[in-house]
Amino acid sequence: MDDLARRLAVARGDEPADVVVRGGRVLSVFTREWLDVDIAVADGWIAGLGDYEGREVVDASGRYVVPGFIDAHMHLESTKLLPDEFARLVLPLGTTAVVLDPHELANVLGTDGVHWLLDACDTLPLDFYFMASSTIPASAFESPRRPLLSGDLESLLRRRRVLGLAEMMNFPGVINADPSELDKLRLAEGVHVDGHAPGVLGRSLNAYVASGIRSDHEALTIDEGRERLRAGMWLLIREASMARNLQALLPLVAEFGTNRIAFCTDDRDPEDIAENGHINGMVREAVAAGVAPEDAVVLATINPATWHRLWHLGAIAPGYQADLLLFDDLERFEPALTLKLGRPVEEIPEPDVPEWVKHSVRNRPVSASDFAIDWKGGKARVIGLVPDQVVTELREEEPGDAATIAVVERHLGTGRIGLGFVAGSGLQRGALASTVAHDAHNIIVIGRNAEDMSRAVTRLGELGGGIVVVDGGEVVAELPLPVAGLLADAPLAEVIRRSLACNDAARALGWSGATPFLTLSFLGLSVIPSLKITDRGLVDVDRFQIVPLRV
Amino acid sequence: MDDLARRLAVARGDEPADVVVRGGRVLSVFTREWLDVDIAVADGWIAGLGDYEGREVVDASGRYVVPGFIDAHMHLESTKLLPDEFARLVLPLGTTAVVLDPHELANVLGTDGVHWLLDACDTLPLDFYFMASSTIPASAFESPRRPLLSGDLESLLRRRRVLGLAEMMNFPGVINADPSELDKLRLAEGVHVDGHAPGVLGRSLNAYVASGIRSDHEALTIDEGRERLRAGMWLLIREASMARNLQALLPLVAEFGTNRIAFCTDDRDPEDIAENGHINGMVREAVAAGVAPEDAVVLATINPATWHRLWHLGAIAPGYQADLLLFDDLERFEPALTLKLGRPVEEIPEPDVPEWVKHSVRNRPVSASDFAIDWKGGKARVIGLVPDQVVTELREEEPGDAATIAVVERHLGTGRIGLGFVAGSGLQRGALASTVAHDAHNIIVIGRNAEDMSRAVTRLGELGGGIVVVDGGEVVAELPLPVAGLLADAPLAEVIRRSLACNDAARALGWSGATPFLTLSFLGLSVIPSLKITDRGLVDVDRFQIVPLRV
Repeated sequence: MDDLARRLAVARGDEPADVVVRGGRVLSVFTREWLDVDIAVADGWIAGLGDYEGREVVDASGRYVVPGFIDAHMHLESTKLLPDEFARLVLPLGTTAVVLDPHELANVLGTDGVHWLLDACDTLPLDFYFMASSTIPASAFESPRRPLLSGDLESLLRRRRVLGLAEMMNFPGVINADPSELDKLRLAEGVHVDGHAPGVLGRSLNAYVASGIRSDHEALTIDEGRERLRAGMWLLIREASMARNLQALLPLVAEFGTNRIAFCTDDRDPEDIAENGHINGMVREAVAAGVAPEDAVVLATINPATWHRLWHLGAIAPGYQADLLLFDDLERFEPALTLKLGRPVEEIPEPDVPEWVKHSVRNRPVSASDFAIDWKGGKARVIGLVPDQVVTELREEEPGDAATIAVVERHLGTGRIGLGFVAGSGLQRGALASTVAHDAHNIIVIGRNAEDMSRAVTRLGELGGGIVVVDGGEVVAELPLPVAGLLADAPLAEVIRRSLACNDAARALGWSGATPFLTLSFLGLSVIPSLKITDRGLVDVDRFQIVPLRV
Repeated sequence: MDDLARRLAVARGDEPADVVVRGGRVLSVFTREWLDVDIAVADGWIAGLGDYEGREVVDASGRYVVPGFIDAHMHLESTKLLPDEFARLVLPLGTTAVVLDPHELANVLGTDGVHWLLDACDTLPLDFYFMASSTIPASAFESPRRPLLSGDLESLLRRRRVLGLAEMMNFPGVINADPSELDKLRLAEGVHVDGHAPGVLGRSLNAYVASGIRSDHEALTIDEGRERLRAGMWLLIREASMARNLQALLPLVAEFGTNRIAFCTDDRDPEDIAENGHINGMVREAVAAGVAPEDAVVLATINPATWHRLWHLGAIAPGYQADLLLFDDLERFEPALTLKLGRPVEEIPEPDVPEWVKHSVRNRPVSASDFAIDWKGGKARVIGLVPDQVVTELREEEPGDAATIAVVERHLGTGRIGLGFVAGSGLQRGALASTVAHDAHNIIVIGRNAEDMSRAVTRLGELGGGIVVVDGGEVVAELPLPVAGLLADAPLAEVIRRSLACNDAARALGWSGATPFLTLSFLGLSVIPSLKITDRGLVDVDRFQIVPLRV
């Protein structure tokens, strides 16, 4: 008897199920009822709801059973974890499937890196789906190892677990019908496309949506959210470590219902997940804010599955994958048990991490003179930090007390270095540097001392990537990220310990803003307003051009 | 400037729209709000909502603007109209897209006929989508020209406008994992599959759904509907000429909202459409029954589009096709104007109807003796008509007053004839015959007189198919259906006139039940309970086997 025939035999009750989940209150995401039914599982699929016998029984008495949570949009690289370690972290939190945009890795390693990651995820018990990273470089002002062209995207879309085009970040290019952006969208005819349209409204939003892009996770306000829903977009409510939009957008659920709204985390650092949870944390917060638990679960299950056309995920019904969460209450949303394919997850295998995905740091050697700005007075364009946001201010002022920031090209050894000033960090001495610097992930370094900045950059080359804090010429804390200069090759606890040590070291140097290295990592992202820096210089994102340091 | 670039330029307001629909109250099917916005159309697509200028302006002042209606499941052949004539009928009623299962045509002409119909529909201003007819023959008890095998379905699925597998009618076969049914479902992996599960509940329903089938339009009761929704099926609420389920199922909208519910007509005869409308009639009735107009429109627009993954249809938003209906009120739902691709439909071209799709009737010549049942008394299995339903009763009784019914094989000239009795028709004399006899569309004939039955069958051969009424050896009314013996090659008015004349003639012979020829046409459908007849004999559908006439 083949798999499907056996599944039907189990559904009919002619064969015992592999597993029966018995005695729970089972959520129908379709009717939003709690059904008192057994769940019969055959070969990892739900065969039936009702009264069933099985070879194994999972006792769910007194518990709530809901589908596994799905993250509608995230970048694995922000967790700094290899996919197996990420799975170890989030499966117990109830996340059973994620849709990744691996664009950090793709900036560093091109499609080769994405194919490696697809393969590395393939045998893991968490379902990793991918979107083909659509905007590399994020803009012409950034320098990844190589751009991803239409042909690259086409090759990625051929892979089974690649669902569509990832966030189209060059929204000015789309809106203005830049031929290279339209080429990508034509390629995507018949597949689907995630958006990224911060602050885009009115006719510009119409143009962005008319191009075929039907989601956005960049809405910050009710009005932006409402306009996106009216325009026919899916509103992916984001609760990232650096961009927390859940509370602002939840009133839309009260206003319009759950239709076309889903949860995503976008960029979460590992400490944040360990402390606040993952998608389950969003469900918990939503319920605490007054959303009905049934609705909150819908936003975390069938809705992301529907947006991504993952027809086998997100519900507890026949023909769906048996990814099930058992909860003791509908407040904490900490799973008493996560069942993947009907069974608790036991061992998570370690994927192959070949040498060629490491050793990605290839910058021309630097010295202190590369980071010295001989400012003679006068107004500069200064990057002004905004607490807890990835947006920055473009300040035109005497740099005065500002720290120095630099981006050092590290893929092709060109020696290109962009220099600027940052206000609002609180940094008093030393230097912080990182190979995690969106999106091209060149080396970003901020400091008070050109010698320390040089030492920090040099140390990253020695490590093959990572995060370092230097004070008085000495490395005082570091987190090696040998995989593409983005991911640690270490267990979660060590990553968190070293990451926290780096943060503590940064604070010891005076850093007073939000999470130092997360903040730092977004200062190079040239598609988020207002003033950013790349190896090519300062980028005025609102005017979308390189601007000189001096006003 | 190419099409997409121009559309974005219109969205931005940099180019005038082709058409602007101005001054209306525009429904967002996403937020269920009425928005006071212009609709800008470029090349037939909606470019933007807001303030726009255009080369043409459609004044929608004081009117409601909603997306064009979509029929989630129908058989064109029940209308007896060629697709152009059907478009002329329903476009003014607001139907702008339909999803056809052409299984009547496919029973008569195989995949050849479906390819012809696909081509014939291609240039019409109504959007015809198809599902690949999955169950031909409907059962082993029926005799189409040839069965459609997996290879046939695969070839149909290659065509752009074929969306998936049409209703899997052999529900016992699916539930019991019949290998040939599972082969079809495996073929459909990644495409989608309509269901047909009359009366199926409990574990059987679980098995049916576990197979991957995710819709049903056969629910008759609230309980059946509720169970289908809980099982994760889309509930396609059907209002067919012979099976009106709308009123019974509408309370589910109040109970659970519009989620996963859509409207369909399944089988509508042309008189019914002319009199009661099409999908617009269902919207009208739903609103009259207390459903909010916004919800009723959702059930007729974005919901059928979502079920069928027609991502460009069913909404008024950028990137959607500009199929728009203007209504003066939200009660009658009679469009003041239907805009297809942003413009009123003017001329509808006549498609090519080649000779080979006509002349499909090829039965062995018959005589009166073929229809004479020499009944010596005793109990027979008698088909008991149930008013306004396609189900019948299996009565075990003395045939007594029952009429004679026969099905004559008409595709391969085998001479096979099935004979039986029908109670409850009221027929007193003469004979009615038709080449429309679900699903194999052999000749079905009912009569009080073997001579008249023979004459009626012979006349259908002369006509190349159709409907005839014979009394006293004379044809007293007829409707020629030369295209496959199913469709008229005539305008709507003539089809209705002749059809009504046939009905009148039947009633003159004493017919007292529901629409005579529609009733007759379902007496051969061997997958609807309880007793049916084919050229192979009487079919006990509940036991799913051929049974003898004598008990």
